Amino acid sequence: MPCPIARSLERVGEWWSILILRDAFYGLTRFDEFQRNLGVAPNILTRRLNALVASGLLERRRYQDRPARYEYVLTERGRDFHPVLLALLAWGNKHFAPEGAVIQIARADTGLTVDPVVVDRASGERLAGPNFRVVPGPAASEAVRARLAARGDRPFRRDAEAPAT
Amino acid sequence: MPCPIARSLERVGEWWSILILRDAFYGLTRFDEFQRNLGVAPNILTRRLNALVASGLLERRRYQDRPARYEYVLTERGRDFHPVLLALLAWGNKHFAPEGAVIQIARADTGLTVDPVVVDRASGERLAGPNFRVVPGPAASEAVRARLAARGDRPFRRDAEAPAT
Repeated sequence: MPCPIARSLERVGEWWSILILRDAFYGLTRFDEFQRNLGVAPNILTRRLNALVASGLLERRRYQDRPARYEYVLTERGRDFHPVLLALLAWGNKHFAPEGAVIQIARADTGLTVDPVVVDRASGERLAGPNFRVVPGPAASEAVRARLAARGDRPFRRDAEAPAT
Repeated sequence: MPCPIARSLERVGEWWSILILRDAFYGLTRFDEFQRNLGVAPNILTRRLNALVASGLLERRRYQDRPARYEYVLTERGRDFHPVLLALLAWGNKHFAPEGAVIQIARADTGLTVDPVVVDRASGERLAGPNFRVVPGPAASEAVRARLAARGDRPFRRDAEAPAT
């Protein structure tokens, strides 16, 4: 599928993979650490770790020889998944934590809680509202260009109904 | 599960749901539009749409009486999922588009391509590096607090290995 969102989802695989990546950002690296923290069946964990290695998100490294033992470390591609986790965390805290946040992000220097938002890197402007739209990239096929053109002025918008906040 | 990422994933359900939400941001609202664009089996689409309605991400609205026909419109909760899609799009374009981007976000006024990044809303600073960490929220249980304390100084970092860029 040419859509970059679809391609991303193909690589991540499924929910267990995202939770494994989350734990890797927490600093977990070993099979038994992931298993204990996730409470996942070993055969599922093995399959998901192998898939994440195959997709280039984790690197498998031998850290002991006899017996051979391996750890799983985030690659650059895996580390670049971090913004997705931050966006999921912010969304979960806003909508699925009626009793208040259980986990949040804070600044280390001030201790102030952080509200993660997605912005345009160059302007710092929030990516919301009609000022931003989906356009074909340099590798877009004629079919993709035609499809986007047919959509006319529809922006890729979070304010499908309401004004941006 | 108390983790806000896990809670988010429970609500989204699976990949089809994310692609349905993506299409809803593109402006699609009707069953046959989703079906055509996604190439998904009708029974799967029905199940996913119903789950998204049950989770409060889409609202089902009758738009015709005889025969009764319904459309599916993003709720506020559904619209707030937008940053997750933007983060997935940026990650897919960076890592899984070797031939160049097929789809990207651009500013409507200048036409310039946008690089979506996640920042701290208050300071505008990118959420990367040791300056940001995971902390217990107001609703954290003693167990969560103990677990985070045991992790010591491990930040929730994208730079698990390399310096932040």
